[in-house]
Parts: sequence; structure tokens; C-alpha cells
Amino acid sequence: MNPFWWRDACQAVDHAAIERARARQQQLTKPAGSLGQLETLTLTLAGLQGRERPSLEQVAISIFAGDHGVVAEGISAYPQAVTGQMLRNFVGGGAAISVLARQLGASLEVVDLGTIEPSLQLPGVRHLQLGTGTANFAQQPAMTDAQLQAALQAGRDSAQRAAEQGTQLFIGGEMGIGNTTAAAALASVLLACPARELSGPGTGLDSAGVQHKAAVIERALKLHGLQADDPLRALACVGGFEIAALVGAYLGCAQQGVAVLVDGFICSVAALVAVRLNPQCRPWLLFAHQGAEPGHQVLLEALQAEPLLALGLRLGEGSGAALAVPLLRLACALHGQMATFAEAAVADRPA
Amino acid sequence: MNPFWWRDACQAVDHAAIERARARQQQLTKPAGSLGQLETLTLTLAGLQGRERPSLEQVAISIFAGDHGVVAEGISAYPQAVTGQMLRNFVGGGAAISVLARQLGASLEVVDLGTIEPSLQLPGVRHLQLGTGTANFAQQPAMTDAQLQAALQAGRDSAQRAAEQGTQLFIGGEMGIGNTTAAAALASVLLACPARELSGPGTGLDSAGVQHKAAVIERALKLHGLQADDPLRALACVGGFEIAALVGAYLGCAQQGVAVLVDGFICSVAALVAVRLNPQCRPWLLFAHQGAEPGHQVLLEALQAEPLLALGLRLGEGSGAALAVPLLRLACALHGQMATFAEAAVADRPA
Repeated sequence: MNPFWWRDACQAVDHAAIERARARQQQLTKPAGSLGQLETLTLTLAGLQGRERPSLEQVAISIFAGDHGVVAEGISAYPQAVTGQMLRNFVGGGAAISVLARQLGASLEVVDLGTIEPSLQLPGVRHLQLGTGTANFAQQPAMTDAQLQAALQAGRDSAQRAAEQGTQLFIGGEMGIGNTTAAAALASVLLACPARELSGPGTGLDSAGVQHKAAVIERALKLHGLQADDPLRALACVGGFEIAALVGAYLGCAQQGVAVLVDGFICSVAALVAVRLNPQCRPWLLFAHQGAEPGHQVLLEALQAEPLLALGLRLGEGSGAALAVPLLRLACALHGQMATFAEAAVADRPA
Repeated sequence: MNPFWWRDACQAVDHAAIERARARQQQLTKPAGSLGQLETLTLTLAGLQGRERPSLEQVAISIFAGDHGVVAEGISAYPQAVTGQMLRNFVGGGAAISVLARQLGASLEVVDLGTIEPSLQLPGVRHLQLGTGTANFAQQPAMTDAQLQAALQAGRDSAQRAAEQGTQLFIGGEMGIGNTTAAAALASVLLACPARELSGPGTGLDSAGVQHKAAVIERALKLHGLQADDPLRALACVGGFEIAALVGAYLGCAQQGVAVLVDGFICSVAALVAVRLNPQCRPWLLFAHQGAEPGHQVLLEALQAEPLLALGLRLGEGSGAALAVPLLRLACALHGQMATFAEAAVADRPA
């Protein structure tokens, strides 16, 4: 196996399909451009699917979960045990993403990369047990090289399974108490942006908690001496298992030719790492929403992303991306099913 | 029949149901507030439906169409004939709203209040023929009192039919070449705001066209001497048949206890007229999106509305509201189906 598989070429965008879709779009019975952002989105999907009329029947959701040693620094409002408890909830059908997957008719896969409960065995969960969570990155690198490679590969495996199932849209979700801290640390390195500008309340810190979180990150970044031009080392030192898996999944999807809908803050950080590792993956990444975490806007701008929703979401689990799926499907339906001016005998402007 | 029926009481919001829904929401397995705007929305729907767990299976869409005499002033990019042509497209299934209604499983009713083709008879369209479009309001009142009453009543009738069908969400759409001009004129009166701040490109005017449109409106407002405290007279003088029908529909829905999802700029102007005629209707109006028409934001602020989407839409037909329906449905599904902390044995914060 190529140890640097993430550098392999991504699938090419089909520009001829985009032009065929554009020609059709211009003939549909509506003022030109009147469907706004949905029109751009449809053309993008046409290019990714190589079809004049894209569709999004097959949606696959993979949730990646992992614990974070940095929680020992008191940077989360919730106890670490919640990560494992939520795994049960995901497969039990009671979590937000479980409800959404059901409503959307999407497949839902749950991958446990390593929580503080190493003996956890839940039917329906893929337990990979890369460790009992990451190490506390305020004191040492979050993961070893072997753990990093395994987490990236786990994501790639999910992408591979999704591609084999004929997935037209892949959503990665994450669960991991403490992971907005890891994500903010990573973004701080890659964007060369102070941690305080990227640190937010996560699941519910107060302002003193947010300041403490930023201080923990700043200290860790000094300890590790990370540079923006080495995203892989940053991922190993201050990332998380589930974040690395998302990176692997996004890159795998782009290599397999599966469009990705990126969720919120943590997923956007993973997207940034993926783009830094292999810029060819960028066209395969669509962005679902701008979340409540204050650093998300900075990230989206750095990625030149135009998210579809801005509802103040901060749940994670891929839930924001799932909520945007109907918009993408309706955009495809409009593009595929609307009558042309000629078909409907409607006058195009001006008379 | 009460000639001032729109002043009749609207249904009361069920505050006890809101509190029951809030108590449930606080127990769901997610950080408090993490579903952002969707949480507020769910509570609102609980209050309107009088249920702890609201649902939105039954959605009714009514499209109101009418022509506008003011098109003679050269304020639209499209010819008036398009209004009638689009009626055929609505019932033929090829218009944007036809596709959306089908995808959503929503009923679709098309009401022709009066186009320049008085002999138009299309199967599946309710032809009311209040006139061959409105009169040119740059020269005389757009409609007579009898026409105004009939248009308001037509909307009320649609609301009545929706209520009888067990509709849980009503969407009003509009079609009428020239109707952003009428809507901007109405908003200018009711908000005491210069027409140039509320006039936009509509279906595709260039900047000279937009300036001309604003000038036509300013001249008309001077001619009629309209005041913000007489919304009914403003509606008759510079409104449109379909705008009046929307006003009647919104008021009728609030009186019947059917929640309304308001579409874009023109529908928001109708909502503003409805609220000025009977402020009790306001809680029944939800706002789907902020459209591309520049005056829309001013209107939404005046209505203290928090729209769900901002996708740069400017199509009309109720299409923006239809696009937001899956978000409302998913919000209801999350609220109704997620597990509580106790059910899922997940620790609530802090441990």
C-alpha cells in the first residue's frame, strides 16, 4: 500500500457536463439566475457526477467518534464518558443524526476510533480501538504516527465502502467530547491565526471557559512548534482520531469520485487539512452550513466556501450537513424536471 | 357576511403547548440550544398546533396570479403575456413550484385573479377574472373597492379550503409580471421608506431600469397621496390582485389556525399589509427566506422576521417557502423522535 496515498490524484471534474447542465439551466422556465445559489450548486453537482441532470438518491453518512486526552485540561462542558454513550445512541436511533438519516433514507455507519472505554462493544458500531482516546496534547503529541495512519485509513475505508454502494453524496460526522479544542488548535496552525479568534463555546463553555480553552491551545502550539506547511504533523500533534478519519474520508471520496457535503466547524477543519494535503480534493467538497462556533466563518472564508445554511447550529454529528440534503435534492429535482421555455410555450425575456 | 372580516379575531397561540415542548426539548440528547434556529421554530410550531410534538405532513400551496397595468410604464423585463403562460406551466407540472409541490407531497392550487387574457380557461386553474389585470396605478387606482374585496375574499377562500383539508402549513405563492413594482410601492407607503430603497431588479432589470421603476413608484405615490395608516387604501391604489389575495389568505389562515410559511419579497409585503390590518395574525406567519430583492431585508426587519434561508432566490411562485419545508419537517422529526438523556442513558452536562 502506498504510505502517502492521500497524495494520489483525485477524480477530475467533468467540465463538459457542467456546460451541458448550464445550457439546460438557461432554458428552464424561470428568470435567469432566479434560483440563486441553487443554480451554482446544480452545475457543480453536474460536474462531479458527469451528468447534465445530477441526482442525489444515495446518501451515505459516516460518524467518526474518538476521545480527546486534552479534556483533562478542563476545556469541555461535558464529561468524556458522553462520547461512548452517544455511540450507543447513534445506533439506537435516538441521536439527532439517527433521526435525520432515517428521514433522508440515508445509510448511517458509526465508527469508533477509540474512546476512554476500550472494552466497548456495541452491535452496529465499528470499533477500531486505536487507543483510549488521544493523549493530552497540552503535554505530548495527541497520537503516534501509527495511530495517525490508521485513523486516516479508517476514513478512507469509509469512503471506499460508500463508493462501492453507489453513494452520490458522502457526509462525515463527528462525535468526541473536546474536539472543538483540537479543531481550533489545528485551524490556528494552518491559518496562522491566534487561537483566541478560533476558540468558541463548543457544547457550552462560558466566556472564562473559552479563554481558558484558547490559553491551553496557545500553550500546546508553543510546546509542539507546529508550522502551517506541515499539516500532517499538526494533525498528529493536536488533532483527534475522528478528525484524522474525516480527513482520510474526504480525500478518499475525492479520489473515488464521490461528492462530499461538509458539516460544521470540526468537519471544516478536517476539510482544510485535506485540502492542504492534496488541493485536488477541493472541488469535491461542498459546504452545508455556517455554524455557531465563531471560528467557523474564518475557516469557510479560507476555504472559499459558500455554505447553504446559517441556522446557528452547533451539534456536530454531521447534523448540519444532513439538514442541507433536501435542498440539494430539490435543486436537482428542479433542474431535472422543470419545463423549458420551448416545452411550456412560455416567452423568454424580452418579448 | 361581515364586510370587515379581516378584523375578526385570529386563533390564539397555545402557550402551554410551547412550555411542554420546551420541557421536552431540554431533555433531548444534544447540547442545549445546539439546533439553533430550528429549536425556536419547533417551539413556535408547538404553540400554533397546540401539540408538544408538532408535525407538518399536510402542506398546501396556493398560487395567486394577476396582471399589472403598471407594466405599461416599462417596469418589467418580461412581457405581460408570461403571467397567463405560466398558469399553464403551473398546472402542466413544469414550473418550479409544480416540481417542488410534487417532491414535497404538497397540494397545489392555482388561482387566476385576472390576467390580460380574459378568455383563458385552463383545466385545474380557478379563473376568477376580476379584471384584465389591474389598472395602471401610475395613472389611477389599481383596483376598485369591489375588486379589492373580491381578491381578499379569494385568498380567504383558499385559506378556508386549506383548513378543511387539515393543512398544517399554508404557502402562498404569486405570479404576476410587474408585481415587484406594486409590492415596492406598497412597502414604500407602509414603511414610509423611499421607493428607491425598496426597488430592485425583479426578474431582471438593469440599474437604469431599477431607477425608472423607483421613479414610476414615487410619481404614483404622489398621485394617490397614500398614508401608512390606511393599508387597505394603499392595497387598492398601488397593490395587485394576487397581493390582495395573499393578504386575505394570510389573515384567513390566522383566523382558521393554520400556520403560514411566507415566501419572498412580494409575499412579505402582503404579510406586512396583513399585520397592519390585523396584528393578531403575526404569530401565524413564519418566514422562509431572505431573497435577492434588495428591499426584502428592510421588510423582514420591519416584521421582526427571522428567515430560515438566504440563497439569493428571486423566483417567486412560493418557491423559496417550498424549499424551506424540509427544514421545518426535519426540525419536527428531530423534536419528536430524538431520545431524551434518560431514555438513552447519556449524561447531561456537567457530570
